[in-house]
Amino acid sequence: MFEKGSSMNSVTFNINQLNQSRIEEIKHKIDQKIKPQGALGALESLAIQLATILTKNISDKIQIIQPNLFVFAGDHGIAKEGVSIAPSEVTQQMVLNFLSGGAAINCFCKTNDITLNIVDAGILLPINDDRLIQQSLGRGTSNFVGQSAMSSEQVNEGLNFGKKAITETLERGCNIVGFGEMGIANTSSATAIQCLLMDLRVEQCIGRGTGIDDKTFSKKTELVKKAVEFHKDRINSLGLELDALNILEAVGGFEIVQMVGAMLGVAERNKIILVDGYIATAAAMLAIDLYPETRDYMVFCHQSNERGHQKMLAYLGAKPLLSLDLRLGEGTGAALAMTLIRSTAAFYNNMASFESAGVTAV
Amino acid sequence: MFEKGSSMNSVTFNINQLNQSRIEEIKHKIDQKIKPQGALGALESLAIQLATILTKNISDKIQIIQPNLFVFAGDHGIAKEGVSIAPSEVTQQMVLNFLSGGAAINCFCKTNDITLNIVDAGILLPINDDRLIQQSLGRGTSNFVGQSAMSSEQVNEGLNFGKKAITETLERGCNIVGFGEMGIANTSSATAIQCLLMDLRVEQCIGRGTGIDDKTFSKKTELVKKAVEFHKDRINSLGLELDALNILEAVGGFEIVQMVGAMLGVAERNKIILVDGYIATAAAMLAIDLYPETRDYMVFCHQSNERGHQKMLAYLGAKPLLSLDLRLGEGTGAALAMTLIRSTAAFYNNMASFESAGVTAV
Repeated sequence: MFEKGSSMNSVTFNINQLNQSRIEEIKHKIDQKIKPQGALGALESLAIQLATILTKNISDKIQIIQPNLFVFAGDHGIAKEGVSIAPSEVTQQMVLNFLSGGAAINCFCKTNDITLNIVDAGILLPINDDRLIQQSLGRGTSNFVGQSAMSSEQVNEGLNFGKKAITETLERGCNIVGFGEMGIANTSSATAIQCLLMDLRVEQCIGRGTGIDDKTFSKKTELVKKAVEFHKDRINSLGLELDALNILEAVGGFEIVQMVGAMLGVAERNKIILVDGYIATAAAMLAIDLYPETRDYMVFCHQSNERGHQKMLAYLGAKPLLSLDLRLGEGTGAALAMTLIRSTAAFYNNMASFESAGVTAV
Repeated sequence: MFEKGSSMNSVTFNINQLNQSRIEEIKHKIDQKIKPQGALGALESLAIQLATILTKNISDKIQIIQPNLFVFAGDHGIAKEGVSIAPSEVTQQMVLNFLSGGAAINCFCKTNDITLNIVDAGILLPINDDRLIQQSLGRGTSNFVGQSAMSSEQVNEGLNFGKKAITETLERGCNIVGFGEMGIANTSSATAIQCLLMDLRVEQCIGRGTGIDDKTFSKKTELVKKAVEFHKDRINSLGLELDALNILEAVGGFEIVQMVGAMLGVAERNKIILVDGYIATAAAMLAIDLYPETRDYMVFCHQSNERGHQKMLAYLGAKPLLSLDLRLGEGTGAALAMTLIRSTAAFYNNMASFESAGVTAV
């Protein structure tokens, strides 16, 4: 058991280390399948990870049960500076679109047999709809250029809310959860998180989000630089650590903090976490900063176009399954990767061995 | 209509040029979907291709009907030189494994709802089994180091057989066909094809197939070099062209020539061709050399580890959907890409437009 946190009220999670001692026998089982060793590439490493988490004995099958995807939506105070292609109102419009089934993530979840859940983690304009998981932390964060995005209480509440969002689903038997997000201006928050956590300059990781023009890009760069410098100085001057909780308070997002809590909640129950693109990976980094063991439960699904993302992935030693130039968020990459998870389970469970099939070992 | 071929008996195919004039309206339809323009990356180009081929009117849905995958198996005379990790007998063993459902491609086809068809295009040790499509061109090709792999009659018969293999499936309504192969030593054939067709040196494109050691790699390199020089001189001295038909005769494989015929047969009926890895791409290049219009019907599914493959893809201007370090063949990459095809059709068919959903255009 681990306890972390800069505040008295901080949430704690019990995250088990994976049983690394099983990796050898699982690898051996895969090497007995009828194929040259390693010939299934990335899917072999994935099979080892899935089997280590989801099976107990070497004869067990990997069962993929009730895949779910959670989209956390939240608004960002910095959006009012005009750092995105769209105003914050679009977050609400997109949540309505998710609820009515018209977004890309609806199509991808339906095609790939994934249950989609939408969470209001703190959007500017709330929606009164029973299909929405209502756990708003407020009507958007504060503009983090010059002040904290949220309070430490909101950070703790956000981690709790995130965990709460996925608990019932996991208790019903789901063993794989994908994470996506919606929030106008949230690449600004993700970049600020990245710079503070990885000690990078803003120029090294800032990108164009869903596709801003040169002028907006300049403005976004200047504002995020200003915010990163401000919060670095502020946190240092208070004698605090640049850790996940303080960074979330400084420059986080309501959807991001809830994703962190939800990811930790999934790891706590020894289930699979599917991480989508740039924003979800920022949340994943924070979860790992809090509890490093969480990394073992994560499958990275999509290498996004956002240039900071490659640096995050290198930092985490992660090679995503897909690279399709998506820059939409919503969990689209995680949804599209689900079939690779299922296909991996299928080869692990059902491929014949050299011995059973009478094929000459190679 | 196009007619090509260096021989009187050569097969002809009628391949229609795609109606490029529809691309603009299809792109416009995609741009009206609720997302920033281009935010679905590679899936947007794929949607344009699928819609151009599979729909007639802008209101039509892209329907993916009865996806099928064909694995063509054939043996290679050069295998007896010891250029592979396994002897030719393994081709038969793997075909038996395909028929009994124990191979990776069986698992991937089942998971992704694809009908799998296995073709004996010319394996060393035939198999008497009704589930196998029997259209053998012989018990393996001749060793192409110093002689032609097959006769010009076998080339023509192979193109015909390939077309025949997929005809009934297409007539039943299937509109998407994946291609894979099995054949010990067939990367040697693919490399020789590549060198002759693209005028490259063997060192620029030869690779380690399913994973040969340094010594075998040296031997493979020397033999393929010798073969490429021999056939280049021979074809030139006869005053013939280094075209697809002559290259197939010189260094082709029975599974490769049948794949070429089958791909042309799919294009002839205006259906989708899913191209797997290195060997399937060699066949695709030959099909395109015969009928350039065939390129428009092809979706490239997997970037293989085989180093010549990147050069082929660059030559064809193709960016595969997946890059998973697979080096197994069998059509595994094509099978795994099927869900991306289905997901693409789903977003094209079902995503709401800005107007319909009342979302602010971005």
